[in-house]
Amino acid sequence: MNFKIVSYIVGRIMQLEAVLFMLPLTVSLIYGEKASAISFLLSALIALAIGLFLVHATGKNDKMLFAREGFAIVALAWILMSAVGALPFVFSGQIPSYVDALFETVSGFTTTGASILNNVEALGRGMLFWRSFTHWLGGMGVLVFIMAILPQDSGRAIHIMRAEMAGPVVGKLVPKIKNTAKILYLIYIALTAVEVAFLLFGGMTVYESLVHAFGTAGTGGFGILGDSIGSYSPYLQWVITIFMLIFGVNFNLFYLLLVRQFKAVAKNTEIWVYIGIVVVSSIAITFNIYSMYESISDSVRHAFFQVASVITTTGYSTVDFNAWPNFSRSLLVILMFIGGCAGSTAGGIKVSRFIIAIKTFFRDIRQMIHPRSVSGVSLDGRKLDDKTIHGVNSYFALYLILFLCIFLLISLEPFDFETNFTATLACFNNIGPGLGAVGPASSFAAYSAPAKLLLSFAMLLGRLEIFPIILIFTPSFWKKNK
Amino acid sequence: MNFKIVSYIVGRIMQLEAVLFMLPLTVSLIYGEKASAISFLLSALIALAIGLFLVHATGKNDKMLFAREGFAIVALAWILMSAVGALPFVFSGQIPSYVDALFETVSGFTTTGASILNNVEALGRGMLFWRSFTHWLGGMGVLVFIMAILPQDSGRAIHIMRAEMAGPVVGKLVPKIKNTAKILYLIYIALTAVEVAFLLFGGMTVYESLVHAFGTAGTGGFGILGDSIGSYSPYLQWVITIFMLIFGVNFNLFYLLLVRQFKAVAKNTEIWVYIGIVVVSSIAITFNIYSMYESISDSVRHAFFQVASVITTTGYSTVDFNAWPNFSRSLLVILMFIGGCAGSTAGGIKVSRFIIAIKTFFRDIRQMIHPRSVSGVSLDGRKLDDKTIHGVNSYFALYLILFLCIFLLISLEPFDFETNFTATLACFNNIGPGLGAVGPASSFAAYSAPAKLLLSFAMLLGRLEIFPIILIFTPSFWKKNK
Repeated sequence: MNFKIVSYIVGRIMQLEAVLFMLPLTVSLIYGEKASAISFLLSALIALAIGLFLVHATGKNDKMLFAREGFAIVALAWILMSAVGALPFVFSGQIPSYVDALFETVSGFTTTGASILNNVEALGRGMLFWRSFTHWLGGMGVLVFIMAILPQDSGRAIHIMRAEMAGPVVGKLVPKIKNTAKILYLIYIALTAVEVAFLLFGGMTVYESLVHAFGTAGTGGFGILGDSIGSYSPYLQWVITIFMLIFGVNFNLFYLLLVRQFKAVAKNTEIWVYIGIVVVSSIAITFNIYSMYESISDSVRHAFFQVASVITTTGYSTVDFNAWPNFSRSLLVILMFIGGCAGSTAGGIKVSRFIIAIKTFFRDIRQMIHPRSVSGVSLDGRKLDDKTIHGVNSYFALYLILFLCIFLLISLEPFDFETNFTATLACFNNIGPGLGAVGPASSFAAYSAPAKLLLSFAMLLGRLEIFPIILIFTPSFWKKNK
Repeated sequence: MNFKIVSYIVGRIMQLEAVLFMLPLTVSLIYGEKASAISFLLSALIALAIGLFLVHATGKNDKMLFAREGFAIVALAWILMSAVGALPFVFSGQIPSYVDALFETVSGFTTTGASILNNVEALGRGMLFWRSFTHWLGGMGVLVFIMAILPQDSGRAIHIMRAEMAGPVVGKLVPKIKNTAKILYLIYIALTAVEVAFLLFGGMTVYESLVHAFGTAGTGGFGILGDSIGSYSPYLQWVITIFMLIFGVNFNLFYLLLVRQFKAVAKNTEIWVYIGIVVVSSIAITFNIYSMYESISDSVRHAFFQVASVITTTGYSTVDFNAWPNFSRSLLVILMFIGGCAGSTAGGIKVSRFIIAIKTFFRDIRQMIHPRSVSGVSLDGRKLDDKTIHGVNSYFALYLILFLCIFLLISLEPFDFETNFTATLACFNNIGPGLGAVGPASSFAAYSAPAKLLLSFAMLLGRLEIFPIILIFTPSFWKKNK
């Protein structure tokens, strides 16, 4: 392990966080929330101090960066960033318990959107802004951001990007990592800006537009009202539906559109399967909830909104879907497992992993029927290597085992099966609300402090796709390089 | 596909079923249940007719048998056997609906033990005997049985055994398949006989001893009383606990004990992990349910019984564990996923698959830390080949996907999340009772006919470990050999 480079980059991330605190600080000042402004300033100073210490304490770094360092940087940066990001809530007294504040911040950065707030409307404007801004930062990834702005560029930085970005295959768009990161963030910023424009057009204030665009872009789901998106107009609900779906798409496709490689987009399997799942699920739910709403257009809108929200693991809601019939609820639970596309800001297992697993299954079936034939698994016209196939299938095994372990521990809490099961699922898959006592109309407040810590851990596991977080608990991981 | 050999062996199975009907017929006669006796006779004649037709209609068979034929034989034999095995219930009028009778019979053969009977005590002695006897037959497998008694022996019969027996690796004990099958059945019969003796000693009648020994040996779970094993003495409950655990062990180990290869048994990883899970889970549950029972010995007994029953996927109960605290209920749900050892009569994903998945995970972790090192996955001192590792990991993916699909369809039924989820789990993993409205104190009677058929399908998928049942729905599977 090259500790110097790890310390250096994690330090840079802390410095970045100190700078980013200036945004909610400004918002606090605009709305005259002095206590909040001071809390952000104090937190920024702490972040800066930690950052300076980490960057300079270790001396000159030699830029040697392998997969190990990539994992260590991502895991430590995310944990430290959350630990410090929680401070303003505590300093301002708006979330007095540090564990609660940490849960809320991890939920923000991991774009989960699960909240311990029973009354979100009691929070100040500055704090609500910070809460939603963490979604936006966590969505595309802070390490990807730092790579886009740091001056140096090492080809090996791909290891950091692989560790932070979601999906079975992470590649470069252009030869330089720095430029890949820049392109991704520019697309991200542009799409967010377009959404802000659409929201402004629908009558939201600048503040509301920004907060909800952050929540949508990161597929996070933190809002500013108790009923999430429920009290906004149908137009605004449709805008958010469409943008949630957009941010659940692999960003590589947007790049391909920009460089006019339309054929490559049309050939992408994942996007079509993703659209297919959304449309079929929404239609099925429309029929299932038809009798609950006044008009067919209401049913269609609520069905599409909730499906988009859940499959992209955003977690916004226009109605309390916990009150829907069982079939719709179960369908939403299954969409929670699936999640969005690889390379998007969405969580979950990812559509492409399901596609690869099912294709592997058919390959295995073919091989059982014709044992002497050799056949591979192809995706988008390219043959997948054995390592990718193994990675996908073992991810399912690992996912199921970890899920069951976390669920067992969460079952020590005094809630029913449905609540504990979907609380685990909603955190592990970075969705936000679950069913039962953690449904969209409720919060995670009633869970005990240890359970909140465990669920925060689950959110990090889910967002970083298990390995970075597990690796930092492996002693041999930390051994010095020979 | 060599249709001749498929038809021949499936025909033989039907002839065998005709003969086996003589057992419950005799029981019916002993207890003076004439209508039942006639029903069994009629069913036997039908089975015989189908059997004769299948064996002779296709002419001389050429004994060419590959993996494909193995899968086809096992899938078709199990489906036909269940379809005909359900007839006596209908003919006698004791289960008037054919779908209900089919559910009950599939549940029997697959050793699930889920029942549509609200009042099991209303059934006649002959019918109850047949119901439990299907467990015993399905436990070790009817194809394994037919291989032990049929005169010819083809080395290729291993393909049938692989398709019917559970677990990631199925091998021969001795060079000849016929002898391997014989040894397995002799051990099975001997262990069943020992259990009968212990049960007789505890005061059960011959009839009760046989029925419960069948249910234990096949890890099935059909009993003859409404409260399952609840009203029997602590001694009898302990006997059944121990024998459930014994039948959840890989039968290869019993063979190794017989041939005095104690070292090989001691080196077996799966058995120790299995014992560890049972002991730790039972102790955890004992603490969790401590306050519910009068004495510590009651708590210990109920904890061990239910843990043994659920991990071996038997499904007997001494108390209504649906009334236990959530932690214990969730722990039982997790044990339902795990299941018993490979090569036993138990269902579930199997302990060895979990071991291999976790070992694969650690191998992958090692490879991430040291990318240039090459390391494999070993079990019991032997290195596993890539095919086995792939098979195990993709089994998890396939398992999760199928589970979610079946659960979604079952969610169309008007029951709560917990009920539908555990009903799917209890059938797919061949356990029997679930939680909620399908808990040990209830039945599957309230599910609709399509749901019962789907759950029957899930039981067959689970018992035969997915592939044989899926393959017969694959058109290319049925193509003629070139």
